[in-house]
Amino acid sequence: MTTPMLGYLDTKFVEVMDDTVALLRQVFGTKNRLTLPVSGTGTAGMEAALTNVIEPGDGVVVGINGYFGERIANIATRCGGVVTTVEAEWGTHIRAEKIAEAVAKVSAPKLVALVHAETSTGILQPLADAIEIAHSSNALFLADCVTSLGGQPVDMDARGIDIAYSCTQKCLAGPPGLSPISFSERAVDVIRNRKTPIQSFYLDMTLLENYWHGEKRSYHHTVSMSMIYALREALRVVLEEGLAARYERHELNARALLAGAKAIGLQPAAEDGYRAPMLTTLRIPEGIDDTTIRKRLITDYGIEIGAGFGIFAEKAWRIGLMGESANERNVMLVLNALEKLLIEFGHNVETGTAVHAASQVY
Amino acid sequence: MTTPMLGYLDTKFVEVMDDTVALLRQVFGTKNRLTLPVSGTGTAGMEAALTNVIEPGDGVVVGINGYFGERIANIATRCGGVVTTVEAEWGTHIRAEKIAEAVAKVSAPKLVALVHAETSTGILQPLADAIEIAHSSNALFLADCVTSLGGQPVDMDARGIDIAYSCTQKCLAGPPGLSPISFSERAVDVIRNRKTPIQSFYLDMTLLENYWHGEKRSYHHTVSMSMIYALREALRVVLEEGLAARYERHELNARALLAGAKAIGLQPAAEDGYRAPMLTTLRIPEGIDDTTIRKRLITDYGIEIGAGFGIFAEKAWRIGLMGESANERNVMLVLNALEKLLIEFGHNVETGTAVHAASQVY
Repeated sequence: MTTPMLGYLDTKFVEVMDDTVALLRQVFGTKNRLTLPVSGTGTAGMEAALTNVIEPGDGVVVGINGYFGERIANIATRCGGVVTTVEAEWGTHIRAEKIAEAVAKVSAPKLVALVHAETSTGILQPLADAIEIAHSSNALFLADCVTSLGGQPVDMDARGIDIAYSCTQKCLAGPPGLSPISFSERAVDVIRNRKTPIQSFYLDMTLLENYWHGEKRSYHHTVSMSMIYALREALRVVLEEGLAARYERHELNARALLAGAKAIGLQPAAEDGYRAPMLTTLRIPEGIDDTTIRKRLITDYGIEIGAGFGIFAEKAWRIGLMGESANERNVMLVLNALEKLLIEFGHNVETGTAVHAASQVY
Repeated sequence: MTTPMLGYLDTKFVEVMDDTVALLRQVFGTKNRLTLPVSGTGTAGMEAALTNVIEPGDGVVVGINGYFGERIANIATRCGGVVTTVEAEWGTHIRAEKIAEAVAKVSAPKLVALVHAETSTGILQPLADAIEIAHSSNALFLADCVTSLGGQPVDMDARGIDIAYSCTQKCLAGPPGLSPISFSERAVDVIRNRKTPIQSFYLDMTLLENYWHGEKRSYHHTVSMSMIYALREALRVVLEEGLAARYERHELNARALLAGAKAIGLQPAAEDGYRAPMLTTLRIPEGIDDTTIRKRLITDYGIEIGAGFGIFAEKAWRIGLMGESANERNVMLVLNALEKLLIEFGHNVETGTAVHAASQVY
């Protein structure tokens, strides 16, 4: 980020842009031409995805099993979409049959949207059946990959995801500030055939496409060079490690964390078989005060873990092991700290139990 | 920007946010509570300003004497506004009588919008009469201060500007990536009394207000810590110099640049008496090729000047002297380089004329 500024149309900067897009395509697993970082954080990417394809009156099916599914439904409604929700209990995945039922009820659905990894619950949502359901109804399929990209396979082209977006500060391990996004040719066709104007100018992909991919690069807005430099470097680091190795590393550390947590009586809040490795949710045991523990983790150990969102508020902790932070050292640090605090607050556990259990996983 | 990351609700980071807002208020010249940096570049600020106050069917009067006035009209239309434009020739200011006429034609206008300093033409638009006209029709007054903030007085409260937004990379001299924005209490009332939802979630000021100013800071999106650190530092530098001194410095260097330019036959493209000091537009003389000169400036002298926009394409150059770059050294460098190139391409000027004329201003 300390690389000197260049003009937004400087030929040297255009090379940086092209580089960044080429790296993004590899991480998204796509050949999609319309791939770029939106100049805003993850929520800007969500809004860009929805506002470009939804027109007033369009039927949109949104899966909700946590906070970010709710946000998709909120934004889709603001875009004029007529939203049908498919709800599942927080901490569980959304079953394909329920998605099929919802899609069947909507005449000519435009879009089916699911959150790939729900940051509020730690669920990794299976996508294959939902994609087939969406496509067989001629709808586009959108996956919110804010938390998954770089930590679990997104594989847009192999899976047939039409629209995916993410952020820079989770499993890509860069600073926050941009939202990588990608649209399939089917999604681009939908945008080109709109009957109404896109309600946002800032997020209008037909204009952003000219700036990022046009033969003649047309000014749209002054992008943040520093953020793009940072994203490019983060993507290089991701690909230097290799996607497969990176996914495995996230899984390995999540297994170790969970083994240690279970050994000291902390139970996972997310359904078995559907757990996102980059975000582990643990139920807070009876008699343990949420805020006290999180504050002590920060002040005594320099460790920040996430508070529960929504129905998980004060009921569960969210422990992120994302990007470079998904490593054995961090797993051991947080387990040791949690164990000590639980013992202090009356938990009957032998010292070293958590770390011992975790170390057996490595 | 290399300051380590903090969580978006970390108490230490909340202090940085509060600091940044307090500094922004000083630079905007306002006590407005709803003052914050939007997580996007200048155009995101423009869109935030318009999308929060305009509802479908609202009458909006927009002054257009350059590229960015056109952009305001474009976005206001996408928000559902019924736009009446007040046009003036590029390179001239918009006369108050014409604004009054346009406002009189609109029944219950919601908003009157002008660009304070038009980056495409170098015009600094007088605001006082237009503000009076807007307020006497019970409309809000919006000023696009993307290019003016930090380089010329904005003075929101003293002037009665209801909505102003800017960017970080012009006269505030930070990296691009955020858009400072401020809303008066009158504008906040308009937002609170909307009958329809704000079409953008990402730019919804009622939600952003809770994150930036709420008693309990509510998560809205993950802001870019790095960008906020950078903006805070840029604002500190602005106030360390002092606003009055900074405005004078911009004026002094613009006078010197123009004196040198005129001495070698380069005429200003912006109307006398209405020139923005941070951006000087010069007509390209007959027989001189725009692109050749700009390319040679970059390759031989390491100086980038702006190409003409719209009707000024290939007809005028735009020379920015903004923030820290508004200094005597840069004035002398660009004048000397332009003079040498003009001589090379057949202009009949004695070497040293431009620098001599400019030096007499200092």
